[in-house]
Amino acid sequence: MGELEALNETTVKSYLAQRGLAERLGGGPEDWAAEPITDGNVNLLFRVKNPHAGRSLIVKQALGYAWRYPDFKMPKGRLAIEHAVLQVAAEHAPEQVPEVYFFSPEDAVLVMEDLNRHREMRAALREGTRFPRAAEHLGRYMARTLFYTSDLYLPSGEKKARAAELVNPVLRKVQEDLVFTQPFMEHPNNRYSPPLEPLVREIYADDGLRAEVHELKERYMTQAQALIHNDLHTGSILANEEETKVVDPEFAFFGPMGHDLGTYLGNLALAYAAYEAHAPNEEEKRAFRDWLLESLIETWRVFEREFLAAWEKDVQREEWSSDRYRERYLKRLLQDAAGFGAAEMFRRLIGMAHVSDFWSIEDEDERAAAESLGLDIARAWIASWRALERPEDLAALVRAGRVLL
Amino acid sequence: MGELEALNETTVKSYLAQRGLAERLGGGPEDWAAEPITDGNVNLLFRVKNPHAGRSLIVKQALGYAWRYPDFKMPKGRLAIEHAVLQVAAEHAPEQVPEVYFFSPEDAVLVMEDLNRHREMRAALREGTRFPRAAEHLGRYMARTLFYTSDLYLPSGEKKARAAELVNPVLRKVQEDLVFTQPFMEHPNNRYSPPLEPLVREIYADDGLRAEVHELKERYMTQAQALIHNDLHTGSILANEEETKVVDPEFAFFGPMGHDLGTYLGNLALAYAAYEAHAPNEEEKRAFRDWLLESLIETWRVFEREFLAAWEKDVQREEWSSDRYRERYLKRLLQDAAGFGAAEMFRRLIGMAHVSDFWSIEDEDERAAAESLGLDIARAWIASWRALERPEDLAALVRAGRVLL
Repeated sequence: MGELEALNETTVKSYLAQRGLAERLGGGPEDWAAEPITDGNVNLLFRVKNPHAGRSLIVKQALGYAWRYPDFKMPKGRLAIEHAVLQVAAEHAPEQVPEVYFFSPEDAVLVMEDLNRHREMRAALREGTRFPRAAEHLGRYMARTLFYTSDLYLPSGEKKARAAELVNPVLRKVQEDLVFTQPFMEHPNNRYSPPLEPLVREIYADDGLRAEVHELKERYMTQAQALIHNDLHTGSILANEEETKVVDPEFAFFGPMGHDLGTYLGNLALAYAAYEAHAPNEEEKRAFRDWLLESLIETWRVFEREFLAAWEKDVQREEWSSDRYRERYLKRLLQDAAGFGAAEMFRRLIGMAHVSDFWSIEDEDERAAAESLGLDIARAWIASWRALERPEDLAALVRAGRVLL
Repeated sequence: MGELEALNETTVKSYLAQRGLAERLGGGPEDWAAEPITDGNVNLLFRVKNPHAGRSLIVKQALGYAWRYPDFKMPKGRLAIEHAVLQVAAEHAPEQVPEVYFFSPEDAVLVMEDLNRHREMRAALREGTRFPRAAEHLGRYMARTLFYTSDLYLPSGEKKARAAELVNPVLRKVQEDLVFTQPFMEHPNNRYSPPLEPLVREIYADDGLRAEVHELKERYMTQAQALIHNDLHTGSILANEEETKVVDPEFAFFGPMGHDLGTYLGNLALAYAAYEAHAPNEEEKRAFRDWLLESLIETWRVFEREFLAAWEKDVQREEWSSDRYRERYLKRLLQDAAGFGAAEMFRRLIGMAHVSDFWSIEDEDERAAAESLGLDIARAWIASWRALERPEDLAALVRAGRVLL
């Protein structure tokens, strides 16, 4: 059998039938409707429905390049990484990931649960939507996926073997460049709202800031602490009032836990900053921002509680027996989260990959004002990351942020 | 061809002839004499000489176990790791390693330069022998092998691919256990001179000390900073007045640079402590210890100078452009060296693998007295490793050490 060609609305149905997945939908291809989902840039995605049975599923196919930018080559093996991470999560935090129905590494095709009852968290936050259970779900998801893939739990040889399987060099290099390098230097990939120019110049000229980011980059490149999602922003989260699902873990590798924590918390801070422009009025601005910061603090508290519970129950006790080490471990993670969170904020504001929180603000001055608040918070986080003690410290720095334009 | 059997004095000669190595020695097997070298525990080692031509070479064969302890299984692939490291060193610090003449991964046989004009540094230090060029050579060796295998120099993908090739999980686990775990808990593998009992009890009970060692262990297990030798103690160094050679890199993997630095500097501190018993008189005790500490400081200074020279010349400048980062990088390495050096000292004094510096002291009380000085220095290093600024700080802590019995 040759290589599977790029699927389309017709062939995706016959593919499902050939792979014995008809039962999932009921009926046969003639009963189904397939539609491409074109939100993303990278993978082919289809929703295939049986409208008669009210059932649907998602088919994801990885090509050897980003489908929207065919010149941008990407290894098809990224889907095997996604699958490996979904398996880990299915074991330790099954409610926070889509169920996998089928995976073919040869075809680079993954068939999974349709999350059509959920919204992209980023888009919903822009509108001031609260997710009352997100902190509980995401704190728990991070605690369990990170603890159970770390040296605290996995036997030494097994951890090293898994890390060597999931090196993911191409996608990591993308993040090394886009998150940790380009936003802090004059670089043709960087984009930012023109009124930010003086602020951006300050950032480019700040050797002390770059020293901090270099250290975070070094950690990102060298610290195989746990299997991290590595793209855990609010666009990788689908949620509603009841449920919270983490998707798209194709960037995963064994890296610093603080990167997942910081990426998520940093994106809450970005939502806070962007709400400068999205809020319908001052009262709602204050109320929604209060909720965002409560959720930030609660996410950390749940993370900490669940991480310690996993430690209590399942740590390799002969290997890691010091109480003081455990205390410091958690404190280091909070500090790392602030550092990595700041890097994430900077890159979303002045690097290549922006987010809809801000680009949805049409008026340039309004957008730049909100973005300047984001930059102010990012600078505060990175200026003090090594000294933070509690999640309330992070929240206080968000609240102290100022619009600089 | 089946698996190569364990070589002996006869078959090692025919092996060399069959592999086209006769030219190295001149003549043929009938002209050669082979003798086993039985200093080590792990590999088969032979010196093969042509006495007529005054030439010799070393043959090293890895079996699937430690030759002296056949129940102790060890992967034969360790010799491929040794060979890979010798290749790296041959490129960046050729004068500090033996020349490789031949390597067969299938046979797990390495043929290399005979270093019979050198002495084991550890044995010589015990007798008060100075090595006037060791600091220059080893500082340079560490600077260049570490810099040129780090992310500072290697392209991102190449570094990750090399790290995934050289995982070395079995030998790393040995060190995780023997260096970072067992010496800090009641463990049947631990051995120590009986008079040390009260001190050892204090160490076992010290949760703060264990927290520091856990953090170093975590770093050892997760931080893929550069290709480290991972066993760079004075028994892995063969030297004379003119030359210094680093051997036996079979434990190598991508780990924290500070571990190589600390292992070597920690072993200088152990030589200092052991000289408590070996010194022929007070004057020579003072003089040799002065030399040891000067050499410790000079090793660091040369390391720093050579590391910065390599950085200046060959760093990936787009990736690592901050001056402050470079300054901090070096300071962090000094601090890491103190932490890892302390762990090395503890394990040589109260863990499973002791060193001849101390076990050559026959009188138990004298030995324990010298060992207690080693423990006092180790505790001082680990109590302050995060705050050290200069190599003189490390030397001062050695000098402030006290015999505790």
